[in-house]
Amino acid sequence: VRLGLDVGGTKTEAVAVDGDGRILASVRMPTERGQDGVIGTVERAATALLAHPSVGEAAAIGIGIPGAIEDGRVRHAVNLGLTELDLGGIVSAHFGVPVGVENDVKAAALGTHRLRGGTEPVLAYLNLGTGVAAGIVIDGRIWRGSGGVAGEVGHMPIDPAGPPCPCGQRGCIETFVGGAAITAGWGRGERSVSDLFDEADAGDAAALAARETFAGGVAAAIRLLVLSFDAGTVVIGGGQAALGGRLREAVARRLRRDAEPSPFLASLGLDARFELLPPASPAPALGASFIDVSVLI
Amino acid sequence: VRLGLDVGGTKTEAVAVDGDGRILASVRMPTERGQDGVIGTVERAATALLAHPSVGEAAAIGIGIPGAIEDGRVRHAVNLGLTELDLGGIVSAHFGVPVGVENDVKAAALGTHRLRGGTEPVLAYLNLGTGVAAGIVIDGRIWRGSGGVAGEVGHMPIDPAGPPCPCGQRGCIETFVGGAAITAGWGRGERSVSDLFDEADAGDAAALAARETFAGGVAAAIRLLVLSFDAGTVVIGGGQAALGGRLREAVARRLRRDAEPSPFLASLGLDARFELLPPASPAPALGASFIDVSVLI
Repeated sequence: VRLGLDVGGTKTEAVAVDGDGRILASVRMPTERGQDGVIGTVERAATALLAHPSVGEAAAIGIGIPGAIEDGRVRHAVNLGLTELDLGGIVSAHFGVPVGVENDVKAAALGTHRLRGGTEPVLAYLNLGTGVAAGIVIDGRIWRGSGGVAGEVGHMPIDPAGPPCPCGQRGCIETFVGGAAITAGWGRGERSVSDLFDEADAGDAAALAARETFAGGVAAAIRLLVLSFDAGTVVIGGGQAALGGRLREAVARRLRRDAEPSPFLASLGLDARFELLPPASPAPALGASFIDVSVLI
Repeated sequence: VRLGLDVGGTKTEAVAVDGDGRILASVRMPTERGQDGVIGTVERAATALLAHPSVGEAAAIGIGIPGAIEDGRVRHAVNLGLTELDLGGIVSAHFGVPVGVENDVKAAALGTHRLRGGTEPVLAYLNLGTGVAAGIVIDGRIWRGSGGVAGEVGHMPIDPAGPPCPCGQRGCIETFVGGAAITAGWGRGERSVSDLFDEADAGDAAALAARETFAGGVAAAIRLLVLSFDAGTVVIGGGQAALGGRLREAVARRLRRDAEPSPFLASLGLDARFELLPPASPAPALGASFIDVSVLI
């Protein structure tokens, strides 16, 4: 039995899986922020799974978490209030089992690949949330590139006249697609992307324009993943995937419109290449259970 | 002994290599266009190599050529005047040896990787010529993606207000970097990119602006290859690589300027990640000699 935990900015999902990757039990709880908060959340979620009658003991624990990860250490997980934390070492010492820690988007990409049968040669998982980044799975393994920035598609600039990005560039994909950026661009204060879609559906002109800008950014990210990796499928996950069919429709419409004047783009069939991760998919936590354990007890 | 041919829009380079990949002989000749022209050029170049005293017989022939390649057939090689040609079948029948045909940029990427020692885990070869595209070598093999469009970075739009691209989109990287596009943008008629750099060096304001636009497009292509694949090194080849140090300087300056306001971009060290293929490098023809033979006699 292995445990997989997906530690998100607001909630943590955890699963226990058997040797065949079947889910034996799952739990969900709010994520507490800061060093102690995150450690406490992880330990509570794992303890809850281990107490489940069908679980018993765990041979290893995998954790997917935002930030830059190296040797079980988490760096720059701003949304969780973490600057640097030896999460792997601490959790491993607490439970007495090997622990692996992986960037949450990469772990979710791996879980998505397995849930879809594990046979796709090139799968991209595009995470749309506060940030925008992709995890790439090639021949069943997470693609890391030469130094860990593979899949940082959110910071590719697509409009020199676009909004400034917190990264210091201008017009990055994230400035059109990121949760904070889209509501800021809409200019109605603290509203969710779901509110934006509601008002666009009601015919509000500003909301319609903002939704189009958003859809254009998602379309650009999909195009980038196909023109670089030639991903066969792009699966969209993350907070904004909860928009469901409305998101799929807006993005597919935009992709078809962009392809109208371009036989080249039309030949890529982008509108048929992307899918949404189903609501409440266990992919992120399941993916975490499959990551290599790097921190040994 | 294997033969490798790089069939370019104006010239064809060919090498004979031994089992250790050492070049035994090389020839160079103008490329003739059209079906008969291309077949004639390939047969003359291969015959010249076979007549070389240090060569004798060849066990296989590899051909790198522009266009979409499948099973030895070349499609849409516009610059060579080819719509569709069973190049592999014809050359194989003529010489009685297995022949492999590969897209020229992918073959050049493979040759570049081998010439650099063959150990880099992720190498991108960025071809700057009439068109703009990249070949990616991962663990020593050409990266194909799911359907052969991997590395088509020239058709990623980076400016919605940019010039229309022949592909039907607007503001593609190729509209800023492609040979035809840059001289068109400069508005001085049929001038080479080298002329542009000369006049920019002489202080001409329009040329300085056009050179900056060009450098910005190359910088965007390098950034895209790092933010997607996380290529450890981007090697620039193709006709415009002949600009040499002047190209390197203009692009490095632009990459550094873009990174000034962005600690994220600065952390990628893009200005130190790219190199130019040396003038007269045998990489494209050498790469062709290493491609898998797919058309058997």
